[in-house]
Amino acid sequence: MTTAFLVQQIRKKQSFLCIGLDTDLDKIPTHLLQEEDPLFAFNKAIIDSTHHLCVAYKPNTAFYEAYGIKGWQALEKTIQYLNKNHPSIFTIADAKRGDIGNTSTRYAKAFFEDLAFDSVTVAPYMGKDSVEPFLAFEDKHTILLALTSNQGAFDFQTQKMDGKEFYKTVLEISQTYKNSKNLMYVVGATKASYLTEIRKLAPNNFLLVPGVGAQGGSLEEVCQHGMNDQVGLLINSSRGIIYTSNEKDFAEAAAQSALKIQVQMQKELTKLA
Amino acid sequence: MTTAFLVQQIRKKQSFLCIGLDTDLDKIPTHLLQEEDPLFAFNKAIIDSTHHLCVAYKPNTAFYEAYGIKGWQALEKTIQYLNKNHPSIFTIADAKRGDIGNTSTRYAKAFFEDLAFDSVTVAPYMGKDSVEPFLAFEDKHTILLALTSNQGAFDFQTQKMDGKEFYKTVLEISQTYKNSKNLMYVVGATKASYLTEIRKLAPNNFLLVPGVGAQGGSLEEVCQHGMNDQVGLLINSSRGIIYTSNEKDFAEAAAQSALKIQVQMQKELTKLA
Repeated sequence: MTTAFLVQQIRKKQSFLCIGLDTDLDKIPTHLLQEEDPLFAFNKAIIDSTHHLCVAYKPNTAFYEAYGIKGWQALEKTIQYLNKNHPSIFTIADAKRGDIGNTSTRYAKAFFEDLAFDSVTVAPYMGKDSVEPFLAFEDKHTILLALTSNQGAFDFQTQKMDGKEFYKTVLEISQTYKNSKNLMYVVGATKASYLTEIRKLAPNNFLLVPGVGAQGGSLEEVCQHGMNDQVGLLINSSRGIIYTSNEKDFAEAAAQSALKIQVQMQKELTKLA
Repeated sequence: MTTAFLVQQIRKKQSFLCIGLDTDLDKIPTHLLQEEDPLFAFNKAIIDSTHHLCVAYKPNTAFYEAYGIKGWQALEKTIQYLNKNHPSIFTIADAKRGDIGNTSTRYAKAFFEDLAFDSVTVAPYMGKDSVEPFLAFEDKHTILLALTSNQGAFDFQTQKMDGKEFYKTVLEISQTYKNSKNLMYVVGATKASYLTEIRKLAPNNFLLVPGVGAQGGSLEEVCQHGMNDQVGLLINSSRGIIYTSNEKDFAEAAAQSALKIQVQMQKELTKLA
């Protein structure tokens, strides 16, 4: 999917919401556990009830790997279901992969070709030749970890490297990578004030922002500091939407939560126009 | 597996060789492609012919994920085969995972419990709460990326952070993590001279060293700078061993390559005694 198409979808749906499919057998409604594939049954119901309110879905691969082969089958079915029924939805494999050269190419093929995701999250630690194999794929997007929303982000990401915070070095250096136009960045919303600085270094890239809502970030503040003239934001919510209810009404309840965010986003998009 | 048991195995086998199972359908002997599961058939043959010459095997998950469900099945069969037939072998899931808190716990469960690996490689970018969930597992080992052997390592890892190279900050800070005794580190052999510095910061931890042989690192030099009194080294070779031949004699040829390294290792261990 091209970035232009994603922006078009955002304008059409008046939403830049990404729904995180962190699907957990301990948290989904118990009646689904009788299904042949409870993970997929849950995802399908959530997708069916929310796809008009969001522009992206983001399964975190850890939740699927934890269930072994069955988990991978559920992940595969989920992305196939999305690509078949909702081809205009942007899909993110939240995998945080990264390895050396040809090995990174393997990961890129796994997520871009075999599973046919539109994008994958990648860790920057190993540098250029670990990231460029992902960037080489046409109309696919590499979402590099820049500033994450967890406490551990302060261990390294905000430490000074050559006089500036390390995550800024990651932003600057990654902009010099081949096909860097295919880069997006993960930026935690718990630090909305950082977004102004980030926009100076990455004015045109989309930012994937987790941590709005449940973790306390304010949507209005994130938009104020992080939006660019092509919107440039995907705001992720996982638990705050998908686990709104764990009764039989879980899918409708999730849609209600998504709608609340979409209404706020519509308001923010008006400011942009 | 405890570190003490690993050291005991090294002394018994006179080897600290780790064989990387980077199994690639484009590189394995073509006669194996007729097998029901060519990836596993190859791995089994390599394990059968080399297990007495090494103390560890390290499948890189990228090579399995690239083949989707079939790849994961092959990975699962490989680790089950190892755990059943060679329980004294140390197993490494080279997965370079890392995520936030509970999500990292998912990855840890996937590799430590579901697949029952002894260890997993982890990327440090997200800091403490992304690494400690792995360290929490008793008698399991978390192998943190410190200084990798690729060109991209110079993008960030060797950049100065607060006056010292970033990988040193990773070594220092990670030593303060809870259960840091369960830490090992990935250190590329292409920079053997760095090992002296690394040993000052991590005197007791095992180092997993890729890049000896094919990528030009010298075993003797690595041992000189990196060995401690408990050996403290696992030297990995992947392609240099497993793809020695792609004819019907591939398994015996791999054993010959492994034997050459084991003989050198025996000599190095004599220096230690």
